[in-house]
Amino acid sequence: MESTATTQTQSNPKPRREKRPMNGVDVPALFATINAVGEQPELAKFQFRASNQWVRGTHSRTRIEGFSGAGGEHAQTADFVYDADHPPVLCGAGNAPSPVEFLLHAIAGCITAGIGNIASARGIELESVEATVEGDLNVQGLLGLSDDVRNGYEGIRLSFKVKGDADDETLRKVVAQSIARSAVYDVLTNGVPVSIEVDAD
Amino acid sequence: MESTATTQTQSNPKPRREKRPMNGVDVPALFATINAVGEQPELAKFQFRASNQWVRGTHSRTRIEGFSGAGGEHAQTADFVYDADHPPVLCGAGNAPSPVEFLLHAIAGCITAGIGNIASARGIELESVEATVEGDLNVQGLLGLSDDVRNGYEGIRLSFKVKGDADDETLRKVVAQSIARSAVYDVLTNGVPVSIEVDAD
Repeated sequence: MESTATTQTQSNPKPRREKRPMNGVDVPALFATINAVGEQPELAKFQFRASNQWVRGTHSRTRIEGFSGAGGEHAQTADFVYDADHPPVLCGAGNAPSPVEFLLHAIAGCITAGIGNIASARGIELESVEATVEGDLNVQGLLGLSDDVRNGYEGIRLSFKVKGDADDETLRKVVAQSIARSAVYDVLTNGVPVSIEVDAD
Repeated sequence: MESTATTQTQSNPKPRREKRPMNGVDVPALFATINAVGEQPELAKFQFRASNQWVRGTHSRTRIEGFSGAGGEHAQTADFVYDADHPPVLCGAGNAPSPVEFLLHAIAGCITAGIGNIASARGIELESVEATVEGDLNVQGLLGLSDDVRNGYEGIRLSFKVKGDADDETLRKVVAQSIARSAVYDVLTNGVPVSIEVDAD
């Protein structure tokens, strides 16, 4: 992880603060959840699901379905439906962002959610968290023009700007811990086994 | 890639069909694009971008920004804004799907877009493409309860059902080619370098 620091004098760490709801995070409930899963590891097994339908051209529509976890089945809190398409410059109709752009949403959203949780667990009041994400993609790969160019992103860069009632180093440690426990960061940096079945007729 | 076949007698391959717009894909424009990028490889360099802002708790909001590629800058065709949140059972407010669920959207949307393009390039009229996606995630990792459990998905499974005016084997080859050139499949299975800068105060 690269890191740019604004130079400042090192302040003494603040005293350990009490566990209370803050930043919109119910911190006591978060710790109770962690403790419950620690005592009953079978609660930790989640399965997330989605379904996708082709619409036309490169345009498709995904419904995020219910999921299992914490020992039960859970419906979504609302009807979550998302389109994807290729942009006109790549011969799509531009009805929605391209699938690769949703990867940028996923990683930013994951690390930011972790920052919210971890800052709150550490008693830090957040003022703002902003991120920019960039992904470099050489389409010679996916267009089949080169076997030396990969199909996917060659690299992804994020830049976070975090403000809160803690010193620079303390806030950086919150971000570092969020990255260290981010599900999407893990998947994008380490990869995941993907199996695909096809039924065609 | 796993594959389940419906048994059928093998029909003779259809004769090579002319390149014409079909399935909502402008096939001549697609081939013209591939040829243009083949002749001017610098056109192949794309950069996709997004920005994200923390809202509250584990809730954040991403704007998909303009992108560069094909030798220029491109605005999005509309204002594409997506929220992400953790579900209530994981102490979020459930304002939106979780970041890991957007990975399922991304991979299904990417392979389906490729099926649309490749079927059209091969002169196959598609009737329907449906996919289901599942991802298994043991939250002992991301909750910090185990260093032996990874933070992200342990595995992702997709199941495609494709119908069109070609035989089973021909349709399967379309799906296989889409997977072989999918940007998101590449990123999720092989991983990608991710660098992160932090500015904290």
